Amino acid sequence: MNEQCGTSPIVGFRFTLSPMTSDFVSVIKGALKETDLQNVWRHTDDVSTVIRGRSEHVFDVAKSVLSHATKTGTHVSMSGTFSVGCPGDTMGDNLLEVTSEPVNGPVGAQYVSSQFALYPLGDEQYMDIIYEEIDFAKERGVFNDSMHYASGIHGDIEPVFSFYEATFDRVRAKTSHVVMTVTFSGNSPSHEGRNDA
Amino acid sequence: MNEQCGTSPIVGFRFTLSPMTSDFVSVIKGALKETDLQNVWRHTDDVSTVIRGRSEHVFDVAKSVLSHATKTGTHVSMSGTFSVGCPGDTMGDNLLEVTSEPVNGPVGAQYVSSQFALYPLGDEQYMDIIYEEIDFAKERGVFNDSMHYASGIHGDIEPVFSFYEATFDRVRAKTSHVVMTVTFSGNSPSHEGRNDA
Repeated sequence: MNEQCGTSPIVGFRFTLSPMTSDFVSVIKGALKETDLQNVWRHTDDVSTVIRGRSEHVFDVAKSVLSHATKTGTHVSMSGTFSVGCPGDTMGDNLLEVTSEPVNGPVGAQYVSSQFALYPLGDEQYMDIIYEEIDFAKERGVFNDSMHYASGIHGDIEPVFSFYEATFDRVRAKTSHVVMTVTFSGNSPSHEGRNDA
Repeated sequence: MNEQCGTSPIVGFRFTLSPMTSDFVSVIKGALKETDLQNVWRHTDDVSTVIRGRSEHVFDVAKSVLSHATKTGTHVSMSGTFSVGCPGDTMGDNLLEVTSEPVNGPVGAQYVSSQFALYPLGDEQYMDIIYEEIDFAKERGVFNDSMHYASGIHGDIEPVFSFYEATFDRVRAKTSHVVMTVTFSGNSPSHEGRNDA
């Protein structure tokens, strides 16, 4: 167990949302506007958006943003990094005191294909932790395939996000500084007719 | 120093290229077709593309793909993860024996804004390593700003990629399993007139 990091439970997600249309600005702004952001701290710059808060709200907001962007029918990718634990993680700490009830809640059906990698930092047993979570994805029925540097996770957006939130929380319970990279893809012509799943 | 990982020098980059146009398929395929891929192993699936080989060729190919995609004038994001060191990293090892001379070489001027995070795995001194590389970015003149979970790097595509290749190689020399996430953005309306830089 790594002892260097802090114990703030604030979770962050820095992501780049990329709608593959020349009208990308309105899709991005629309998805953020249609999402209830009251329980997260948020900042957008020229490359990405970061949200911070309680784990349940960060995953709730991430899912809602992706859902609103994909419901336009546009092919959308969302690449980002979920992080917890280190260092100097205090901005937005007031949002840790809010309700634990997600305000966006369930979204409409949407097939999502994604790839993720887990990085438990400062822990020499990190490979064991990673293998346990790949097994957990298989138990959840969302595992797609193995590949270099990542694992494929797919299915309807609800069980896909439910898996990510659960696996992130499972790893946090084992090690203090956790990073999880995820790239989501929706409405891709490569999804072979599963976009209505 | 982490002793669990292998010592294969093969470097990988798994990335998602997202041109913000409805004609995204031709921009992606065009960028890959116009890039000389002879010195890397490559595989593309429904979410991302992975390239593997000697460090200099992986960075050369990544830069060329981004350059060809942005020269269309389309706003493009490229999010990905550079990795080296672990585990079971053997496919494509034959490509370690090739020339060390990059075959794509210098590309045209293009302002790129990007954000990166470094994750030296299995090393308890990882925070010190990260801070050293942020200082290195400042020395190179490509540092843009600090932010939660990442650091901003910007400028012309050549010094930006030169920094990433150098910092990745510097960290590899200190720890065996290194992960570096980067999101590049080109031709963004948020870049405030610097796209011709």
